Amino acid sequence: MNAQLTILGNNSAAPTKSRNPSGQVLSFNGERVLIDCGEGSQKRMLLYGINYQKIDFIFISHLHGDHYLGLMGLLNTMSLNGRKTPLKIVCPKGLKDLHERIVELGNGHSTFDIEFTELDEERIYNLETSKWWVKAIPVSHRIPCYSYLFREKKHHRSLNIAACKRYNVPRSEYNKIKAGEDYVTPDGERIPNSELSDPPPKAIGYGYITDTLYRPDLTDEFAGCSAVYHETTYLHNLLDRAIKTGHSTALQAGEFAKKATVNQLLIGHFSSRYDEMSALLEEAKSVFPNTVIAEEGNSYEIS
Amino acid sequence: MNAQLTILGNNSAAPTKSRNPSGQVLSFNGERVLIDCGEGSQKRMLLYGINYQKIDFIFISHLHGDHYLGLMGLLNTMSLNGRKTPLKIVCPKGLKDLHERIVELGNGHSTFDIEFTELDEERIYNLETSKWWVKAIPVSHRIPCYSYLFREKKHHRSLNIAACKRYNVPRSEYNKIKAGEDYVTPDGERIPNSELSDPPPKAIGYGYITDTLYRPDLTDEFAGCSAVYHETTYLHNLLDRAIKTGHSTALQAGEFAKKATVNQLLIGHFSSRYDEMSALLEEAKSVFPNTVIAEEGNSYEIS
Repeated sequence: MNAQLTILGNNSAAPTKSRNPSGQVLSFNGERVLIDCGEGSQKRMLLYGINYQKIDFIFISHLHGDHYLGLMGLLNTMSLNGRKTPLKIVCPKGLKDLHERIVELGNGHSTFDIEFTELDEERIYNLETSKWWVKAIPVSHRIPCYSYLFREKKHHRSLNIAACKRYNVPRSEYNKIKAGEDYVTPDGERIPNSELSDPPPKAIGYGYITDTLYRPDLTDEFAGCSAVYHETTYLHNLLDRAIKTGHSTALQAGEFAKKATVNQLLIGHFSSRYDEMSALLEEAKSVFPNTVIAEEGNSYEIS
Repeated sequence: MNAQLTILGNNSAAPTKSRNPSGQVLSFNGERVLIDCGEGSQKRMLLYGINYQKIDFIFISHLHGDHYLGLMGLLNTMSLNGRKTPLKIVCPKGLKDLHERIVELGNGHSTFDIEFTELDEERIYNLETSKWWVKAIPVSHRIPCYSYLFREKKHHRSLNIAACKRYNVPRSEYNKIKAGEDYVTPDGERIPNSELSDPPPKAIGYGYITDTLYRPDLTDEFAGCSAVYHETTYLHNLLDRAIKTGHSTALQAGEFAKKATVNQLLIGHFSSRYDEMSALLEEAKSVFPNTVIAEEGNSYEIS
């Protein structure tokens, strides 16, 4: 089964008439994860038919406004609509207090539990959702900022139902077989697991890397990912500006994807100076051909 | 000269697919005033061709998210785009600290001065912009909330240029004549002001009343306004709910306008339960015929 990534915003810094600040929804096996939440993210989820009440986890890269100023409105709306399901938020230090202050100013309360995990040191964190192992990996921006690496949790083999029925395997044994165990019949005959199940499909990996200077030293972490979203604020002719502001160029995004041998590169977080993105796309593709623009409203299969 | 009011959002609580939280821009004689700033207000100003860098004053009614959670993104964008012009913000107590905290979390700074006037008691405040006398009048909501009354500043008579030239009035005297003084010629002849100037046009008044229970005791304050925007969260068949949540009905908005003898009533702040607003409009019109829906993206002449 594939994961799906829907882009809510692909612009940097401020919205333009046609583009919006960062946000994306990673859906996998019924679990929805929101990654960054720029202003207007809740509105775009509405427009794109994504039920934000079914988001279980939110990961925030850093506390520049274009990456999180839509979060307070989203949490507010979740409460207004009577959400009961707990929510987990992973973010740099400071957001929990800010949220509490905003709730207090409105004399309100959250109708659901929010568990904040605040990342407050420049180190790697190992986290998990119900479907993913997640690594929060510090990158190089003007303030503490984390990239997120999602690796599908070690998953089970696919049951060969026909074979199980043929050997009269009781349903109560199915989980053990999916976990790789052989089956021993009541008569003591051992049926090898390989006859009862098929190998798991290749594990899915997804990397979210924004906002940061080019960090080729991190390519090993993201090696073999099905897809990586890498920020592409500038064309490479503005490398000096990218370095000064803690960002990357399209060429560098392509180089990262090539060095990490990922399947697909999505580029986004474009400077508002670019009215259209073909030059950025061409630049990244010159290094890594399987590159696409992360278009707002589009969903991408991560497989 | 007329003032113009552009509606950025007319929905209550949370955005819907087609509507947005509160926000409106009052433009008059080159001055732009933003009243409330729900999430996405900066985006809608972009879409409606309103230059937010030219906003000089912002008035916030209260600190429920749908009335101010777009403010932090707007201030952020103003700085990103290098604003230098000072900005004045009038709001209930708490917003200044919140803004400072958000700037601090992003390790940023404001490129322009912001002067906050925080309303922290349940009393009337007399304020002013360059074009308006403004009263902040407490209303009745679940948290401290202010309505705003804008009255055109006492303005000058219109110069009758032809007559001034006929009497050889020097330009240095023009301001005195606009202020109502007679002109005395070098020969000692007194020319009555009425020959040199025309009466000022009728002063413009605009009232912004949201979120509140019906407050007929305030109609004297808003008497004779050119237009009043009055919240209309519910139809009158949900009066109990309106009272419970600190809101008004369409019928009550109409009654307010009638009792205050205003020229025009604009209704907004609609509950998301209403997909279309004709029933709300008809209900208000049954009491006060000159009622219109405050449609997002529309501009209304306040004359």
